[in-house]
Amino acid sequence: MSNPYIKQYLMTAGPTPLPPAVSQVMAEPILYHRAPAFVEIYERVLERLPQIFRSSNDVLCFASTGSGALESAVANLVRPGHPALVASCGKFGERWAELCEAFGADLTHGAFEWGAKVDPARVDEVLDSMAVKPDVVFTTQSETSTGVLNDVAALAEVARSHGAILVVDAVSGLGAAELLQDEWGVDVVVSGSQKSLMCPPGLGFASVSQRALDLAAASPGGRYYFDWAKTAAGQRKSPPDSPFTTAVTLFRGLDVALEAILAEGLDEVFARHAILARAARAGIEGLGLRRFGPDDPDANAVTAAHLPDGIDGARVPKTMRDVYGVTAAGGQGHLKGRIVRLAHCGYYGAFDIVVAITALESALRDVGHECDPGAGVAAVQRILIEAGSPAPVG
Amino acid sequence: MSNPYIKQYLMTAGPTPLPPAVSQVMAEPILYHRAPAFVEIYERVLERLPQIFRSSNDVLCFASTGSGALESAVANLVRPGHPALVASCGKFGERWAELCEAFGADLTHGAFEWGAKVDPARVDEVLDSMAVKPDVVFTTQSETSTGVLNDVAALAEVARSHGAILVVDAVSGLGAAELLQDEWGVDVVVSGSQKSLMCPPGLGFASVSQRALDLAAASPGGRYYFDWAKTAAGQRKSPPDSPFTTAVTLFRGLDVALEAILAEGLDEVFARHAILARAARAGIEGLGLRRFGPDDPDANAVTAAHLPDGIDGARVPKTMRDVYGVTAAGGQGHLKGRIVRLAHCGYYGAFDIVVAITALESALRDVGHECDPGAGVAAVQRILIEAGSPAPVG
Repeated sequence: MSNPYIKQYLMTAGPTPLPPAVSQVMAEPILYHRAPAFVEIYERVLERLPQIFRSSNDVLCFASTGSGALESAVANLVRPGHPALVASCGKFGERWAELCEAFGADLTHGAFEWGAKVDPARVDEVLDSMAVKPDVVFTTQSETSTGVLNDVAALAEVARSHGAILVVDAVSGLGAAELLQDEWGVDVVVSGSQKSLMCPPGLGFASVSQRALDLAAASPGGRYYFDWAKTAAGQRKSPPDSPFTTAVTLFRGLDVALEAILAEGLDEVFARHAILARAARAGIEGLGLRRFGPDDPDANAVTAAHLPDGIDGARVPKTMRDVYGVTAAGGQGHLKGRIVRLAHCGYYGAFDIVVAITALESALRDVGHECDPGAGVAAVQRILIEAGSPAPVG
Repeated sequence: MSNPYIKQYLMTAGPTPLPPAVSQVMAEPILYHRAPAFVEIYERVLERLPQIFRSSNDVLCFASTGSGALESAVANLVRPGHPALVASCGKFGERWAELCEAFGADLTHGAFEWGAKVDPARVDEVLDSMAVKPDVVFTTQSETSTGVLNDVAALAEVARSHGAILVVDAVSGLGAAELLQDEWGVDVVVSGSQKSLMCPPGLGFASVSQRALDLAAASPGGRYYFDWAKTAAGQRKSPPDSPFTTAVTLFRGLDVALEAILAEGLDEVFARHAILARAARAGIEGLGLRRFGPDDPDANAVTAAHLPDGIDGARVPKTMRDVYGVTAAGGQGHLKGRIVRLAHCGYYGAFDIVVAITALESALRDVGHECDPGAGVAAVQRILIEAGSPAPVG
């Protein structure tokens, strides 16, 4: 029997697909990280990154994944024995708690249910109740494990009102959903290269305010590779320099990806993600599935769906991948087998949603859950039609 | 005037040039790090890496540069207030000392002159003199800042005789000069992807013995991203898994590079590096320059030369690069302007040495130091002829 499903599609929330121009530039000959030909690229990237964070901060760059950037925040800000508050609502929020414990914080962990949002009012109460106020509150913008988007502006306000700084994991959210770091008063935003920034994994970022740098400087030691002061001092030199070898290949990819993002325009990028997310939500409902998580028009990085009762849920993403060539993610932790997650942060377009919903429909049918053929995509198409054609047809 | 020097050559000790097959595979579509198509690559790389380290240890992999792998060793082994010994002879050895201080060690620093070797007998005396013996001695195999190769076997012996484990930075040495980790009893060898392993920068490695893992387990905390136990537990699963997103693109490159190294044969790789280093040393002497560092037939990663008196030394590597397209490195720290360093670790062949020596000759002439035209390359050629043709000529 012939197989019409020979092509592969990547729909996970990291790593995500790359634009061809990003892949191509990484195949160019390696540059020495201190040669002018590379320093020019390095300088341009350092100048452009803050535009993505909507911040005037230096964005500190590390050769690490996003988790390394998270570690940089904890290693620079947490002092052993001092209180820290983590407000989590999923696997990646819980990573903040694990990191804080590893670095000896006196941890208070406000753990909201997986699939719920972090509630700023509740965080306010927790801070009220703490005898010794923490210097730092850690939270997550887009919780990749559930697709939930937290209200970072409100959380920054709450943290500020208690004299704490807010540190936000924006690994999957940055560049998919609005995050106005300076306007919202978020002291630290950390992220990684492999999601909306349309690059391979291997670069971590921390956009750090002067207040956060000062706080870090007050507790030196226990860090070196991830030391913010060391990296900031290098990046502020003229020309900028990195204290360690730069991951030059990934940086060249990032340079091309930032060029593409800024050429599209950040607002346009957000608007595109919003259409894709609306289409994914509609597609899921068109298939007769319930969406997982709160009704949130701004949760634009990842869309999750409850899997129907009475089927072996873990087989759905497996069938999508092994039979139909579409790699999506299932649930993590206790959500394993219970949800499926479709990512659309980064280099994704309208027809990626058409493909993902069609593959989900096909996999559901294969595991014994009937759906009307094309009902999911019909709903996707209605959203895409409503969003309009990008250009008049001649 | 026409310019015959339009091509670019990279002769620095990291990043180094990549084989075309490595560059090409990194331009392939991104794989999800937990999909079978990638897990197969991951598993193969984890199985092959120990062959390069000549060890039966698990080689722990980090998304970081080599300096991140160094940090992993210090973060896992150094306990605040406990004694540690660093035996250094250059910039990268001194990095161990900076790391140990950042992590609160009670540091004893045996700092040998830049350009000298670490003397095992002297290290023995230092260990004798320490009232409280350190658990760990840190040193460097190939000191990239000077080209010096240390006697790791003898240093392992000395450390062992005092009940300490030896941790070796083999970032530029691994795969260029022999290092028999298990036979020599070296507990920890750390390295990076961007030198003899013929990959871009961005992957760090730590080959860690059970004894070193046990020592790390005795002092948990203060680390997370670089925690050995966490990474070892993931890599030992079946199939292996990484606690954090793997730098999938770089890993695919590493897979192809390891394939090439093992196909050439590790002994052949060392023999090739030995010929290139002999040729580089001869070329430098052919140009009438003095070699920098001790006379060492095994120092095969980097060759350094004193620059002549009476010229502006810093202009030599600059002219090589800006005029002749050959990026070599000058001296670091107090050796700035006093030496030039030619790297030949990784994807280098005989004619790279011909090019490097010719460029050095040309640059010396440009800054006012006369050399016989072709005298350097004549000496290179004599070494290459002596080494013989790789195959009979038909």
